[in-house]
Amino acid sequence: MIGLSPLRVDGREKVTGAARYGQDLKLAGMLYAKVKHAEYPHAEILKIDTARAKKIKGVAAVLTAADVPGNTAFGAVIVDNQPLAEDRVRYLGDAVAVVAAETAEIAEKAAAAIKVKYRELPAVFDPREALEPGAPEIHEGGNQINHHKTRKGDVAEGFRQADLVIERSYSTQRVDHTYIETEVVVASLDHDGTLTVEGSHQNIFSIRAAVASFLGLPLSRVRIVQAALGGSFGGKDDCMSVLSCRAGLLALKTGRPVMLSNSRESSLIESYKRHPYFLDYKVGVKRDGTLTAMEIKVVADGGAYASMTPFVTWRSVVHATGPYRVPNVKTDIYGAYTNNTYTGAFRGFGSPQITFAYESLMDEIAGELKLEPLEFRMNNILRDGEITATGQKLDHTVSVGQALQAATSAAGWEEKRRRFSEENRTRLLKRGIGLACSYRGVALGAEGVDATGAIVRIQSDGSIDLTTGLVEMGQGLKTVFSQIAAHELGVPVERVQYRRTDTSTIVDGGPTVASRSTIMGGAAVRKAAIAAREKLCAAAAGELGADPAELTAVGEKIMVASDPDRAIDFTGAVALALAAGMNLSSFAWHVSPPIWWDEEAGKGNAYFTYVYACQVAEIEVDPETGKINVLEVWAAHDVGKAINPEAVRGQICGGVATAIGYGTLEEVELVEGVTKTVNLDEYLIPTAMDVGKIHSIILENPDKYGPYGAKCIAEPTAELCAPAIANAVAHAAGKRIRDLPLNLERIVLGHKLVKKQRRAR
Amino acid sequence: MIGLSPLRVDGREKVTGAARYGQDLKLAGMLYAKVKHAEYPHAEILKIDTARAKKIKGVAAVLTAADVPGNTAFGAVIVDNQPLAEDRVRYLGDAVAVVAAETAEIAEKAAAAIKVKYRELPAVFDPREALEPGAPEIHEGGNQINHHKTRKGDVAEGFRQADLVIERSYSTQRVDHTYIETEVVVASLDHDGTLTVEGSHQNIFSIRAAVASFLGLPLSRVRIVQAALGGSFGGKDDCMSVLSCRAGLLALKTGRPVMLSNSRESSLIESYKRHPYFLDYKVGVKRDGTLTAMEIKVVADGGAYASMTPFVTWRSVVHATGPYRVPNVKTDIYGAYTNNTYTGAFRGFGSPQITFAYESLMDEIAGELKLEPLEFRMNNILRDGEITATGQKLDHTVSVGQALQAATSAAGWEEKRRRFSEENRTRLLKRGIGLACSYRGVALGAEGVDATGAIVRIQSDGSIDLTTGLVEMGQGLKTVFSQIAAHELGVPVERVQYRRTDTSTIVDGGPTVASRSTIMGGAAVRKAAIAAREKLCAAAAGELGADPAELTAVGEKIMVASDPDRAIDFTGAVALALAAGMNLSSFAWHVSPPIWWDEEAGKGNAYFTYVYACQVAEIEVDPETGKINVLEVWAAHDVGKAINPEAVRGQICGGVATAIGYGTLEEVELVEGVTKTVNLDEYLIPTAMDVGKIHSIILENPDKYGPYGAKCIAEPTAELCAPAIANAVAHAAGKRIRDLPLNLERIVLGHKLVKKQRRAR
Repeated sequence: MIGLSPLRVDGREKVTGAARYGQDLKLAGMLYAKVKHAEYPHAEILKIDTARAKKIKGVAAVLTAADVPGNTAFGAVIVDNQPLAEDRVRYLGDAVAVVAAETAEIAEKAAAAIKVKYRELPAVFDPREALEPGAPEIHEGGNQINHHKTRKGDVAEGFRQADLVIERSYSTQRVDHTYIETEVVVASLDHDGTLTVEGSHQNIFSIRAAVASFLGLPLSRVRIVQAALGGSFGGKDDCMSVLSCRAGLLALKTGRPVMLSNSRESSLIESYKRHPYFLDYKVGVKRDGTLTAMEIKVVADGGAYASMTPFVTWRSVVHATGPYRVPNVKTDIYGAYTNNTYTGAFRGFGSPQITFAYESLMDEIAGELKLEPLEFRMNNILRDGEITATGQKLDHTVSVGQALQAATSAAGWEEKRRRFSEENRTRLLKRGIGLACSYRGVALGAEGVDATGAIVRIQSDGSIDLTTGLVEMGQGLKTVFSQIAAHELGVPVERVQYRRTDTSTIVDGGPTVASRSTIMGGAAVRKAAIAAREKLCAAAAGELGADPAELTAVGEKIMVASDPDRAIDFTGAVALALAAGMNLSSFAWHVSPPIWWDEEAGKGNAYFTYVYACQVAEIEVDPETGKINVLEVWAAHDVGKAINPEAVRGQICGGVATAIGYGTLEEVELVEGVTKTVNLDEYLIPTAMDVGKIHSIILENPDKYGPYGAKCIAEPTAELCAPAIANAVAHAAGKRIRDLPLNLERIVLGHKLVKKQRRAR
Repeated sequence: MIGLSPLRVDGREKVTGAARYGQDLKLAGMLYAKVKHAEYPHAEILKIDTARAKKIKGVAAVLTAADVPGNTAFGAVIVDNQPLAEDRVRYLGDAVAVVAAETAEIAEKAAAAIKVKYRELPAVFDPREALEPGAPEIHEGGNQINHHKTRKGDVAEGFRQADLVIERSYSTQRVDHTYIETEVVVASLDHDGTLTVEGSHQNIFSIRAAVASFLGLPLSRVRIVQAALGGSFGGKDDCMSVLSCRAGLLALKTGRPVMLSNSRESSLIESYKRHPYFLDYKVGVKRDGTLTAMEIKVVADGGAYASMTPFVTWRSVVHATGPYRVPNVKTDIYGAYTNNTYTGAFRGFGSPQITFAYESLMDEIAGELKLEPLEFRMNNILRDGEITATGQKLDHTVSVGQALQAATSAAGWEEKRRRFSEENRTRLLKRGIGLACSYRGVALGAEGVDATGAIVRIQSDGSIDLTTGLVEMGQGLKTVFSQIAAHELGVPVERVQYRRTDTSTIVDGGPTVASRSTIMGGAAVRKAAIAAREKLCAAAAGELGADPAELTAVGEKIMVASDPDRAIDFTGAVALALAAGMNLSSFAWHVSPPIWWDEEAGKGNAYFTYVYACQVAEIEVDPETGKINVLEVWAAHDVGKAINPEAVRGQICGGVATAIGYGTLEEVELVEGVTKTVNLDEYLIPTAMDVGKIHSIILENPDKYGPYGAKCIAEPTAELCAPAIANAVAHAAGKRIRDLPLNLERIVLGHKLVKKQRRAR
């Protein structure tokens, strides 16, 4: 079962349309909610007049921060995000009031009837300006959300040893997750006083914490249940807490179920985005191409609320040098509040930005040194047993070189580099090939506890219940977890029923983020299934005249491993166990191997293992129109072990598509805090026509910590294609674009002119 | 917390009307179902014509046994009960078809439009006749459902040793559970193919087994959830399986949620009842009052389906001699099919019938010997270390003598026995006082595995989730379990949230029956809570500089037991545990001590412990009208340890009221299989005015197997008052009534005349 690709266990419900998404939830007596959004990006609230709204027929409740029974603010790291603004609005997605009514139309009308008196405050929209003295203060204590650093060696000495010191600045843009399903929740009160919020949740436990705090309820009386999820990509976390708090409050006050959902416009205005980064790199290098030092300064735009900024920027600071041997490193990264839409978790989580910078930079340095980009990288990449920029000695197979070679040889790299350069002299449409590689710490890393649980329960008919606190978001988690349980129990995957993810069914096992599900959750599922199998073996041992340790579970049988004829049916073993009074319930808890981080020193063993990848993009660019066609992408990813290769390939295709959008098309345009791209006619995402042909290359270097050697896929797939395309554009057209996205304007005008144009608006 | 009576944890939802019962469930798009019942008590189905019904506007489905994808029949012991009759109907509550429509009215109309062609078959309504050769055969293989026996010593020899051999016959009637809420379910299909049936369920796992088998689904894809329950008393088990199968089938076929509920009339016709028993006792006794032998033959009317008959009659056979020292015993009990409404579990489960017989009999024997009933009993009751009728040596405190003395001395027994006899000579309304005592095996007994589980999960804010597979039926289970968890964790009971009972949240831990919840489930909760506490102690040990074994949990603190000043807050300990990567989830499984039963030999250690009780009833009877007034009841029950004394008292009051109804009022009248008492105007149950004053006397002899020494309450409360009243009537009016109920007719006419009258109808 491990290494096979059975049909997705949730495939049927998806393709038949049976899947019940948040919008499909209809509870009897359900009210519909609408939000009254802020009218200024930064303003003091003087008065909220809800009298007219309350008088509208069919309105059940109009609530403001004054109605909140608990803490008005929540936050994973910094408690600053107010689902209902109390005395100040900090971005245009803030809500000052929320309405529940018999229909969505009435709620909309009532929201419009709320009158708010504001005193406008000076605002700041550039995070670098926000960090300057005298900038308008968005939260008490100043605009710096956090400052992370890494320190290794002595950069001054490193630059002295260098033959060449190169300085470059890059920037990345704000992008939206653009899940097809916008955010939706239905909150309802159970008769035992438990509030249930079902909806398009990514992280049920963090949402529960926010709702419980907001409503002043104990955690055990808030139940968060995931409905079928129409995409998330890190996006349905804090903003789902916001929706859940608002809907939960309305349900609590009205005693009726309440649905709150965002239109696409609300979603684009309100929901958090990927952080825009401003990245300054200074690199020392010897003539022979040896890196001697890197000094890096990054400012991230956190927007109005901290959300995941401290964690996102920590991942960036750890990986900021890329997978290279750099003896002297000094990295500083700052998260800053602005009056822009806030930013948070987004697939990659701080890596797409830095990968764009360091992988563009590697090509630039190679260019300066007249070295081939591949050769230059091969000379500098980390190898087995070497030390990262954070001082961590890598104790596993460091496969970035293998990934580089696999992707480039599949792509015909050397031949194409040469041939395209020649052919482009006479071609109107310029062709280029570029690459990018990365390393990436797997799972949450050393900034917190990383542990998760799984429950395997065998029923008397041999069917199997599987429960974890981790969620299916389309990535195939249910299928992979079901495979693991089926494998360990020796039964077909169809026997396994993955229970819907519900905070009331298992302890908090952390979020489904950081590509941690397989390595952490999969390990927990495996342990739980093994524990369940051991019970069956113990129960069957007498009947088989064998020691339990001699038994195994294969082919729906419990059998003597060395003598498969001595076997008993799986359900027969279940019956024996039950007759013996055994319980066939196994809970397992998996804790990450020890890791550590010294925030003061900027050093640590940040992650217990890393994955390595390389992507090569072949593109065609029209210098006249600026249009880039991504023709083919070769994506080589070391996943440790592909438990479900088809799912891995699916992840690669999805991640590459995301990165092509990031690299060439997508940008949430904010002008003085106002979102200009409020629908999908303005906010462009790639279609199937835009992503070219994707070649998935799965590399397997089993990891000692992962179940069956598996590490992860997911996020690394989305962090490489933007710089690979940028490098391919440089190859094709000789244009080095250091700002994302590589849209038509930038290709035609170059980034400086684009900036000038923009300021002139 | 143990021995206190905090407010019921589900009190608020009950008294405010917030509790959501099955009838309160409204799902969007829900259909309403109605059943087409049989038209003969025994007939072959030749043709079911559903064409007209299907054509009615608003009808979504009309289904018959031909539409069942799985096994058409289910049964806990014998698989004979068909939720949709396949080729034969066996009682008038059988269904031949089931309809789902947009409204209940349309469904009713459609059910009426179904035309069924039958061939009537000869029927049998008396279980004794049913067991005779040549009786109409109701199921293949004959009408004997089961035969249980006990054998001890040599009864022939015992009768030889006797000075007096007394033979008496008793009978008990069919009674209805008459829960205030009739049966209701809502079945709906989840998008993952899981069928959920929420409703007024008593036993979620047995219902799940029936539904899965009927629909051909694995157990893991059927989810049974209990709604708030408006009474059950053993009654919402098999008949809920029947409703759940029917509604589940409709939901599966229509893809829409379906509600199926019984009107009071349907409930009285369709749902199973308490078994009527015919009991023949032959007893040998010496002149000094020493019992020498008992020979007992009992026939139980199982009705159309076996249901729990094999288990109910097994409990009867084990206890048939009462709590008396009888050296020679021969008991035979037969369950028989008839074409009456089937019979099954009902609070007491085979004991109210035999207790009525043997406790009436004890008074009769005492009378024959001119001994006082109390004195006679005290001479014969079981004492510590003695041997029961099944050969079991009692290894605990045998407190039947203590119960007899506690109840009689509280009642002023001796004085009243004397005084009433005198006063009655001159009184019109005759006053009497009677008693009955019993012993009762706790929990399921040796006819199966008895084990159950509990999950305690501590959340990061210190709130606590508690999950078991056992249900609240009004008995106070949620409160008692929450008390146990709170006690072991040293926190207020308000911290504990008892999760709704749902088959998808825990493994099958057996049914909530046999008064087993506290002794089995309570023990599991205790173990789980202790395991959770041990984790907290382990986490806090470092901080407190103590060994975890030195720590305890009291007053929301984890503290050094010997030095309470060295303490850490409960939530502080939780935080330490979580920071250390520990999981605060504890599952515990509790298995009953070893017991055994030899069905062939009629011997065994039938139960791992027993409870003992005595009830005294003081009544007034009007010999002219036959009206009995129950004035006062003294109920002394040894519960081992009262975890919640108020709940124990509640159980005693409820059980006494049930038994007063059983003793004096209730009877489901069936004439040739036709239910004549189809509503509460004809089927009489006692009101608050009918139950007199009840004195609860709690005796505590802690049991080595029970949590905190607790054994049980529940069922023994309902098995004593009927014979106590019968004995009081004999005392008051000199009339010995050997048939239940002691209604007006029997008091006035005597039972033989009543029978004659009845036959003449």
